[in-house]
Amino acid sequence: MNLCTVAAKADKAAVDAEVKQLLKLKEEFKAVTNTEWKPGMKPSVSADSPAGASGDASKDVLVVKVNEQGNVVRDLKAKKAGKEEIDAAVKTLLELKAQYKSVTGEDFPAPGKAPTKPKENKPKEKVAKQKPAQKEKSPVDATQGGPKKQTRLGLEVRKEDSLSDWYSQVITKGEMIEYYDVSGCYIFRPWSYAIWEAIKDWFDAEIKKLDVQNCYFPIFVSKSVLEKEKTHIADFAPEFHWNERRFLLLLQVAWVTKSGDSDLAEPIAVRPTSETVMYPAYAKWIQSYRDLPIKLNQWNNVVRWEFKHPQPFLRTREFLWQEGHSAYALKEEADVEVKTILDLYGQIYEDLLAIPVIKGRKTEKEKFAGGDYTLTVEAFVSASGRGIQGATSHHLGQNFSKMFDIVYEDPETQEKQFVFQNSWGITTRTIGVMIMVHADNKGLVLPPKVASVQVVIVPCGITASLSEDGKKKLQEYCDSVESDLKEAGVKVRGDYRQNYSPGWKFNHWELKGVPIRMEIGPVDVEKNQFVAVRRDTGEKIIEKRSAATGYVKQLLKDIQSNLFNKALADLSANQVTLTDWAQFAGTLDQKKIILAPFCGESDCEDKIKTDSTRDEDAEPGAPSMGAKSLCIPLDQPAPISSSDRCIHPDCKNSPKFYTLFGRSY
Amino acid sequence: MNLCTVAAKADKAAVDAEVKQLLKLKEEFKAVTNTEWKPGMKPSVSADSPAGASGDASKDVLVVKVNEQGNVVRDLKAKKAGKEEIDAAVKTLLELKAQYKSVTGEDFPAPGKAPTKPKENKPKEKVAKQKPAQKEKSPVDATQGGPKKQTRLGLEVRKEDSLSDWYSQVITKGEMIEYYDVSGCYIFRPWSYAIWEAIKDWFDAEIKKLDVQNCYFPIFVSKSVLEKEKTHIADFAPEFHWNERRFLLLLQVAWVTKSGDSDLAEPIAVRPTSETVMYPAYAKWIQSYRDLPIKLNQWNNVVRWEFKHPQPFLRTREFLWQEGHSAYALKEEADVEVKTILDLYGQIYEDLLAIPVIKGRKTEKEKFAGGDYTLTVEAFVSASGRGIQGATSHHLGQNFSKMFDIVYEDPETQEKQFVFQNSWGITTRTIGVMIMVHADNKGLVLPPKVASVQVVIVPCGITASLSEDGKKKLQEYCDSVESDLKEAGVKVRGDYRQNYSPGWKFNHWELKGVPIRMEIGPVDVEKNQFVAVRRDTGEKIIEKRSAATGYVKQLLKDIQSNLFNKALADLSANQVTLTDWAQFAGTLDQKKIILAPFCGESDCEDKIKTDSTRDEDAEPGAPSMGAKSLCIPLDQPAPISSSDRCIHPDCKNSPKFYTLFGRSY
Ligand SMILES: [Zn+2]
Ligand SMILES: [Zn+2]
Repeated sequence: MNLCTVAAKADKAAVDAEVKQLLKLKEEFKAVTNTEWKPGMKPSVSADSPAGASGDASKDVLVVKVNEQGNVVRDLKAKKAGKEEIDAAVKTLLELKAQYKSVTGEDFPAPGKAPTKPKENKPKEKVAKQKPAQKEKSPVDATQGGPKKQTRLGLEVRKEDSLSDWYSQVITKGEMIEYYDVSGCYIFRPWSYAIWEAIKDWFDAEIKKLDVQNCYFPIFVSKSVLEKEKTHIADFAPEFHWNERRFLLLLQVAWVTKSGDSDLAEPIAVRPTSETVMYPAYAKWIQSYRDLPIKLNQWNNVVRWEFKHPQPFLRTREFLWQEGHSAYALKEEADVEVKTILDLYGQIYEDLLAIPVIKGRKTEKEKFAGGDYTLTVEAFVSASGRGIQGATSHHLGQNFSKMFDIVYEDPETQEKQFVFQNSWGITTRTIGVMIMVHADNKGLVLPPKVASVQVVIVPCGITASLSEDGKKKLQEYCDSVESDLKEAGVKVRGDYRQNYSPGWKFNHWELKGVPIRMEIGPVDVEKNQFVAVRRDTGEKIIEKRSAATGYVKQLLKDIQSNLFNKALADLSANQVTLTDWAQFAGTLDQKKIILAPFCGESDCEDKIKTDSTRDEDAEPGAPSMGAKSLCIPLDQPAPISSSDRCIHPDCKNSPKFYTLFGRSY
Repeated sequence: MNLCTVAAKADKAAVDAEVKQLLKLKEEFKAVTNTEWKPGMKPSVSADSPAGASGDASKDVLVVKVNEQGNVVRDLKAKKAGKEEIDAAVKTLLELKAQYKSVTGEDFPAPGKAPTKPKENKPKEKVAKQKPAQKEKSPVDATQGGPKKQTRLGLEVRKEDSLSDWYSQVITKGEMIEYYDVSGCYIFRPWSYAIWEAIKDWFDAEIKKLDVQNCYFPIFVSKSVLEKEKTHIADFAPEFHWNERRFLLLLQVAWVTKSGDSDLAEPIAVRPTSETVMYPAYAKWIQSYRDLPIKLNQWNNVVRWEFKHPQPFLRTREFLWQEGHSAYALKEEADVEVKTILDLYGQIYEDLLAIPVIKGRKTEKEKFAGGDYTLTVEAFVSASGRGIQGATSHHLGQNFSKMFDIVYEDPETQEKQFVFQNSWGITTRTIGVMIMVHADNKGLVLPPKVASVQVVIVPCGITASLSEDGKKKLQEYCDSVESDLKEAGVKVRGDYRQNYSPGWKFNHWELKGVPIRMEIGPVDVEKNQFVAVRRDTGEKIIEKRSAATGYVKQLLKDIQSNLFNKALADLSANQVTLTDWAQFAGTLDQKKIILAPFCGESDCEDKIKTDSTRDEDAEPGAPSMGAKSLCIPLDQPAPISSSDRCIHPDCKNSPKFYTLFGRSY
């Protein structure tokens, strides 16, 4: 489920091609062998050829292979593999690129251009400059005993100058992430994990009120079960648009093939999501309508072996999430849940993370691979002008119950009925969105509701001339403020370390985004006051000691709503309603997202994407700079009138609704 | 870490042999090639030979291979693989067994006999009958659409007749576990997962009070990092007894080698534990004494590809746990933590799970692979007469900090100092111990403190003659009791389903182990009373409605302590202090555990195990029926006097302490 929910958004054109390729191969196979192709059968490729170097010359296959091999090279380099090994892999990569050129007559597109869908029949005007791959900070290298940390404080890049470098610095200097020597995997340090815990605790309590029960299913999926789904998908691909994405997901599966030095009898997949893991059990558990509804949830880790450039929190090969899976007798009951969960996701973003979201329905093209419809919360990153999918809640209809034979006996007719299912998920991507939206050139800015430290107390003015008694009084004063705040339920920490200067501490806690810094010096003790500095605005306030707890609690609320309002203003300023295609691409270039009348057809959406792509603006690592549909907002800006036209000028269909388009993550 | 902590306890003799074998191979390699052996070099075995069928004829290697191949066969059968495939695997198995016989002159030992350490130079008196492999209940088979569940209620096997069949029935009929089609992996249904959540919530709050922070490290480990440790271990094996077990752990690692259809450039391991994952980051983060202590914890899943017979909760290939990893400047600080954590583990067993434990130190032979010393809580399963390790807390000394170069600068001398480290873990095995100790012939018996439902209300006496008004009154009465209990913080559920009879419900909730059943009928409504039935004793009490909440809350406490006291009496009755070796084996046969004076030497411990093994009692799936040391109790039964002798009659060493011996899981 929820390919949509994750960082990884797939270019479906490539998959489309893959699926077609598969179907074509099956036909060819039958023509040649007079036998039906079955999963597990292998094409006759030399067994010891290097990965991706087989002789298939189809362009689309080559695109996938080049991307895979590029990844292999990146992995080897990240791992500081031997020169020989790296050289061999690079050689394979170059060979594949050469094959690509010989097949297509074009150079393999540089990163940043939609590499999986090079434009055909269009003379290339210029070849985009190959920018160097985005650097990751040096991962911890255990084989070398580990490099030592850098002590320089403060960010060295501005958010407006280089978003990706800025992001890297914010997350490392803010102690959210430590880089790791397996590509696409990152260490969640306590500072970021605490935010996930805050989200988890809140959401877990909410779904328990809805009688959702937590459980745990294995991380492994047997090959036969996965193959079953793959075959099912391939067979039905022409009928279900969504199957393409599901198929891509299967291509991203990591396989365990060995234990110790021994080969397993059969490879075992690491879950990319748990439908195939869970639904066979649902089929077993559900007999009668009395066994319904089933509402289960897991908090777990999943693995998707992405080939796109990874980015901490936003697109990672392993990520944490919750996946809820429910089964109902009636579609109407299921529909209610889909919306209820969406609203909870909305609350996570708006109430906890102070990020406004647009609630909507996904288009047919963008909806969850396997569902009848998908509801989504979409956020906006003004720094990049891109939309980002926040979390999704899917109504699966009977698609999976038919695949897994999940039926109950109708109490009246005694007939077998397929259940109606939902699935819904939210991931650790949330943390990345929070950083992208709120963090600034001084570092992280944490919304008080998810900050594990809301207030830090830093004693100041401890000079050589300060008497021992003065020092003691200062400490006691700080202690008493700290304990009052703690008493009042404020998450407070006193930073009384003597080996760091107040200035160092200011920087440190600013980088880490603590909402309020309290500065307390001998003068404040004397005057029975304290100084509070807001992280969000930098504003410095002097307040009476006696008012401390009330004041701080109110200030935390103010900061929370100020962050939300700032982000909301940003969103409002950058969301444009448009009916004229001529302004479309230009508006995207102004880093805005666009509400436009749209017919809802996938083909038309493909055109909108293609025709809004501007090569010269491509950024390394970006999936594509064309506009995708983000959602069909539940709250429409206006009714569609009979004189409205679909935003794409070539489209002859009537528009059905305003749809939100934008560049996206 | 914590090979000790898990269900899987390795036979170290086999590993010892493996390590020796490895060192020998390295020597031979050097002699033949005049080159140092390096990890990754492969012995020249035909690449396409089936797993485990290479030509190496060493007995110890063959033992491992037979066990592996046996597992392959089991996997295939569980997966209902094709007959051809199974036959081929069986053939390989038989060939390996034949090789074993040709090398050793003996049949490969039947299951239940220590299969990894066949006795040498001892004529076999009889060949133990090969019992059929313990059956697992049919796993959910997705490829078949899923078999339908059985509706028969109640256990069909008694605990005293066949413990393992009884266990299977208890966990499935009690809805704790659903079997799964990947061997060694099980589905935690909400009923069992809730117990894990109860343990987690309590322990998590406790460690947070100790300033332990939660975090998340990747599930994957690069090959180079893991190889580094393997080499390190192999190099030091002769010096460190514990390295054997660590080495075995590495042999159990599951490897991801493919994503989709492509080979990875380098295999990536799935974490069996996180030292190699975490400590390189520790080396980076720790510079100064000011960075210390570091106290991190993760709640996660780990994978160990065991070849022993799996058992839900007790020995599984994937399991859930917490792993705490701390680093201190001073050994003394670390020592305090090891004990503090042990006490928390003790509380989980005694206070939450109502299971008495014996706190102790592990012997040199049994201590954690990598540590200076290991503290443990050991529980006792009277039904099998076996001890079971509950959880362990390790002081790692500077072993890992030297391996990973985790150092800080001494503030006074400016010299580099290696940090002192601890690690500690508790797993989902806890749930299995709880079942083994408390469950009975009617099913589960849940201690109130971990039960997600403490009281179930079942309305009774709803006959055809009961008026509508009577029904309504009964329902209202039940509702009001339910809401009073809820108000009072009792976890209560009313089972008002109309399609199940009260008798069915009694059975159902008994199987699920709910501590108190409340039966309420029209007569009770009339008399303003209720009937309470205790799950632990079956006792039936009639009590006044007005006293309900107070009574129930007290009864839950009584049940909790009754369960503990019963288990404690069981433990006391079956723990024997012994100084005479002649009674040793006989006492084990009486399903008792033994406190005996012991010298502490690993060789002596090996002898005790070997010489207390009784083939005829061997049980399928049991690792070995010889006695292992469970722990050296912190609370010694008596001081060792100068006249005491070590329990093993051949031993010339002086005894150092009473040590607890027993058959174990
Ligand atoms: Zn259109
Ligand atoms: Zn001895």
